[in-house]
Amino acid sequence: MSKEKGSRAERELLAMFWENGFGGYRSAGSGSTPLPSPDLLVGNGKRYLAIECKSLKSKTKYLEIEQIKELIEFSKKFGAEPWIGLRFNNIGWYFIQPHRLEKTKNGSLIASLEFLEKEGLKFQDLIK
Amino acid sequence: MSKEKGSRAERELLAMFWENGFGGYRSAGSGSTPLPSPDLLVGNGKRYLAIECKSLKSKTKYLEIEQIKELIEFSKKFGAEPWIGLRFNNIGWYFIQPHRLEKTKNGSLIASLEFLEKEGLKFQDLIK
Repeated sequence: MSKEKGSRAERELLAMFWENGFGGYRSAGSGSTPLPSPDLLVGNGKRYLAIECKSLKSKTKYLEIEQIKELIEFSKKFGAEPWIGLRFNNIGWYFIQPHRLEKTKNGSLIASLEFLEKEGLKFQDLIK
Repeated sequence: MSKEKGSRAERELLAMFWENGFGGYRSAGSGSTPLPSPDLLVGNGKRYLAIECKSLKSKTKYLEIEQIKELIEFSKKFGAEPWIGLRFNNIGWYFIQPHRLEKTKNGSLIASLEFLEKEGLKFQDLIK
């Protein structure tokens, strides 16, 4: 995924949150800081969500364990729910929490459309 | 204030929060989004703070009312306390909430070192 396409997906998701009563923003980016920095941070005074965003062309995504660990670490320290948001081309967004992710035999984390259709949440269910 | 100097001040303050039990991060910047986007957003699971940062060479700073309104709007929607952090060269940081700011006769907002020494909080008092 290109950096620009990733940014576009993040902005799209951020706008969806704003339209649904949440405020929040995008990180200045992991390149500018050694500190963990998930892509989006949104809240509405009741719930706070830290979200790592992925935009996919394919139906399956391997996730870097280190990045997911950082998402969990950040969320714990800040006081937010850790979420991974995956945007599938022509299908839309699915959301899942890190501990729900499937692991491959060699310990990688994997998110597939098939799995997310069963175990993930659509945006409207995420913000319920 | 140069943009680079502003970023340096934001990073310094963010590191101070991390060292004191808060997680958080810097905004991707107002240039990249039409949505309100204060410079820093930090939390520790109990308190959430949205902070507009200013780095000053002089002892007095006039603040853009529009920017302060956006800080308040963002904070209300996200669920954070709105704060303004002012960094004075060779003196350090002072913090104050928007409604405490002094107004000039023509309605501008103004923050002076003299005022902040009396009415502002130092970092360690802010995070108490």
